[in-house]
Amino acid sequence: MTRSQEFELSHHISRRAANRQIRPFMKLYPMPADMVPHPKPLSLGGGLPNHGFFPIDSLDIKLVSQPVFNLQGNQSQKTAATEKFSINRFDEAGVGALDLRSALQYEFPGDGHMELRAFTRNLISRVHKPAFENWDCILTNGSGNGLDKIADLLVNEGDVILVEEFTFPLTLQNIVERGGIPFPVKLDLSSSETSNGLDLGYLTDLLQNWEAQQPSLRRPKAIYTIPTGQNPTGLAQSLEFRREVYDLCTKHDLIIIEDDPYGYLTLPSYERDQTHRREASPRIDVAEVDNYLQAGIIPSYLTLDTAGRVVRCDSFSKLYSPGLRLGFIVAHAEFITKLSKFSEISTRGYSGLSQAVLLNSIKHWGTRFSGTLSQTDCDVYGWLSWVMKVRNVYIHRRDVMLDALYGSEAFSRSLIQPLEPKAGMFVSVKVNFTEANGPRGHHESVAKLMVEFVRYGILVVSGSDLCVDDEISKDNANFFRLTLASSNCDEEIVESINRFTHSISQYFK
Amino acid sequence: MTRSQEFELSHHISRRAANRQIRPFMKLYPMPADMVPHPKPLSLGGGLPNHGFFPIDSLDIKLVSQPVFNLQGNQSQKTAATEKFSINRFDEAGVGALDLRSALQYEFPGDGHMELRAFTRNLISRVHKPAFENWDCILTNGSGNGLDKIADLLVNEGDVILVEEFTFPLTLQNIVERGGIPFPVKLDLSSSETSNGLDLGYLTDLLQNWEAQQPSLRRPKAIYTIPTGQNPTGLAQSLEFRREVYDLCTKHDLIIIEDDPYGYLTLPSYERDQTHRREASPRIDVAEVDNYLQAGIIPSYLTLDTAGRVVRCDSFSKLYSPGLRLGFIVAHAEFITKLSKFSEISTRGYSGLSQAVLLNSIKHWGTRFSGTLSQTDCDVYGWLSWVMKVRNVYIHRRDVMLDALYGSEAFSRSLIQPLEPKAGMFVSVKVNFTEANGPRGHHESVAKLMVEFVRYGILVVSGSDLCVDDEISKDNANFFRLTLASSNCDEEIVESINRFTHSISQYFK
Repeated sequence: MTRSQEFELSHHISRRAANRQIRPFMKLYPMPADMVPHPKPLSLGGGLPNHGFFPIDSLDIKLVSQPVFNLQGNQSQKTAATEKFSINRFDEAGVGALDLRSALQYEFPGDGHMELRAFTRNLISRVHKPAFENWDCILTNGSGNGLDKIADLLVNEGDVILVEEFTFPLTLQNIVERGGIPFPVKLDLSSSETSNGLDLGYLTDLLQNWEAQQPSLRRPKAIYTIPTGQNPTGLAQSLEFRREVYDLCTKHDLIIIEDDPYGYLTLPSYERDQTHRREASPRIDVAEVDNYLQAGIIPSYLTLDTAGRVVRCDSFSKLYSPGLRLGFIVAHAEFITKLSKFSEISTRGYSGLSQAVLLNSIKHWGTRFSGTLSQTDCDVYGWLSWVMKVRNVYIHRRDVMLDALYGSEAFSRSLIQPLEPKAGMFVSVKVNFTEANGPRGHHESVAKLMVEFVRYGILVVSGSDLCVDDEISKDNANFFRLTLASSNCDEEIVESINRFTHSISQYFK
Repeated sequence: MTRSQEFELSHHISRRAANRQIRPFMKLYPMPADMVPHPKPLSLGGGLPNHGFFPIDSLDIKLVSQPVFNLQGNQSQKTAATEKFSINRFDEAGVGALDLRSALQYEFPGDGHMELRAFTRNLISRVHKPAFENWDCILTNGSGNGLDKIADLLVNEGDVILVEEFTFPLTLQNIVERGGIPFPVKLDLSSSETSNGLDLGYLTDLLQNWEAQQPSLRRPKAIYTIPTGQNPTGLAQSLEFRREVYDLCTKHDLIIIEDDPYGYLTLPSYERDQTHRREASPRIDVAEVDNYLQAGIIPSYLTLDTAGRVVRCDSFSKLYSPGLRLGFIVAHAEFITKLSKFSEISTRGYSGLSQAVLLNSIKHWGTRFSGTLSQTDCDVYGWLSWVMKVRNVYIHRRDVMLDALYGSEAFSRSLIQPLEPKAGMFVSVKVNFTEANGPRGHHESVAKLMVEFVRYGILVVSGSDLCVDDEISKDNANFFRLTLASSNCDEEIVESINRFTHSISQYFK
């Protein structure tokens, strides 16, 4: 579609977002036609403090060259290989980085500094280029905030939003906050080999027979999915599968809310034989990034989207750090305009320090490719070279965890079945409960097993915790979500899995 | 009041905020009474990345010792007197500062890191101690975000919120967003000597005769005021005046929303004779801070509040930098609980980098007082010693601007009358329009004069821009708001005022 065409999906914008008017700060004063404005006006207008009031003159930042674990106290200063760069009051190099003078200032209308927004556009163009033209990116205060803004954009009172039956619970809250109704769609948890997460047959049937099955509810207006490294299951949808879902959503006019905090953390197939595992390289070159771009990442729904039907929620939390409070949304420009208005009256901007530290880190990582690549690609490749280092740790930790699970007595006794994750930071493990299910299905057994986990000292989250509707999920809530993210070292992962599997062995004694 | 008493103002909580339920992330699993939990549990539960994934190992921060202006490029690195400190991955000194390991991590439920919240409580205890017991502080993403959250807390559809007739327009937007009705209260702009801003007689009459005068509207439930350095007028309410307003609000059961971004930037009386002006000291000692605390700051409405009627919105934007996106709200703990729930589903936290840089700056400034003061007071005095340096610049700039205004031809011809500001960053200047007012009152003349400002190259904001209701304010919208904040140097302020006053002189030619 071209920019001149009308956006055919604008009927999905909530009444709240469609009707929101932002009062301009100043009135519009008509100027006489013959008036010649002063060529160099001065301003006593806005309330922006001069940067001379800002106490910070410069930041020197030391980055580790690799993620490093199990550090304590001043050990980190000494043992980790590090590299340094500075952020000054003025960007003298003029490389389009964010200097302190700008980063510490107000930013209007509050959608993120243009330098970082430009990077997000370049990244998406390179990695997940939308198949429609009139798209844009806007920053958020992290993905959780982004999902709240997307709910504001789309959800009217009484609107039905389809969600995966096990999912990130705060999104449900954002939907309910606007009077929306999250409606669960079954997941296929039969096997991590064949499953794409969403049960496509179930979804197709649900949409085909909605009026008959759900006479009291409106037809769904959107589906919320975590397509890569689904939380909690760790499953991922193949590109072919996404095409089928996209076509189904087109047929039934559903918006696709793609929540993708883990999409860069794809996990190649698990090799049980350790000698077959590839060694991660400490330095990452252009060819490796190219290979990752071509074969390592599952393309976003955006890449299939010819209509502006996909609203993608992206995050820097899992790849740089949650404390930045930075993420971004990719969507049709008309959606972005509405999201921007909501930001202007709610969050009113994001930390300029976070933005400057993130963007200057990216530019620092990019310098390694300068001469070889364009400035734009330097930034993207620099960023991805760090992302790949993070991903390598997740791949390694996944191996450590699955090794321990498959080596356990519980596995050899067929008490557990890991769902090998395709991406992200979670390994889900199904437990083969043998007791007859009561009316509460697996929830009953899960609650009993949770007692054993507390006894043996291992905290986990259950599928039962994260299901949208206890009744609908009662027969496949027999799994536990184990994170790869938080342990200090491999030994801690192994010890944690030992406690987890031992608890289960004891439970079935 | 004591904590055990019921909060008598909880009926002011909006239905939205009162009914909001946050679904817990995990279910509550009942544990058998005889179960002994493992003494050292490990966690595979949450999704928090280990800090080993965070690329930043340390930040070295260079602060200027004083605000410094008119710097360019690498000049700032060379000419400004600076001091340095570091933020490391681990807070080894253990002084309660925020280290990178915590700052870069998720923070739950998203109300700000406890270390910075503790500082805000200490600051308020020292400077504006509430007269009720059960109060607390919660961070915001800057005051604009704080005001949005306060609107969520209080405003139901159809609620009337009183506001100053000229005010910060985004707050109106936050009220309207919830279906509330901002209703203007007249300001007394007769003279900066005698005015406290709000026209108390008007307000008293309005509340006394509300049903008769406004039969179609509900009784007001709150008043929104910027009591110190009112935007745009620069006026301030004396403590005695606040007591009268507070008593009136008690009588009519109004919540007081105190927006106080400029409260620390009080401006002592303007001395026209330059030889009578005091010299600002470059180093600020304990006695000076004590003097500022006792005589330099107008106590907040909180200090009069025995009931939890005041909700105070505070900001670090004007004192440290807007790009931090950090402010805080002080209110009754029951209000804070509701604000926290809203934060949990909307902003979901604030930049840990901003919080760490701010808190560690405060602790750095505080070290100068260590040995003399308690750790808690070191932080407060350290912070205030920086604030006083910022304030000294505003006092100086106010002098420069008023000198230029009073020295102008426009003033000598009685065309203008500055309202000498009591606090904040704005000087408002009334223009004595002589033409007969048409049905649009002063708005017509303001629009014509704005043309001259564009012609002569000076951007200003008009009272007309910032009035809530054109009709109500048409006879006192004859003023312009000039900022002290944004100019690069004194010479720029003088040149700006020359253009401003010259435009007016020309207009009246």
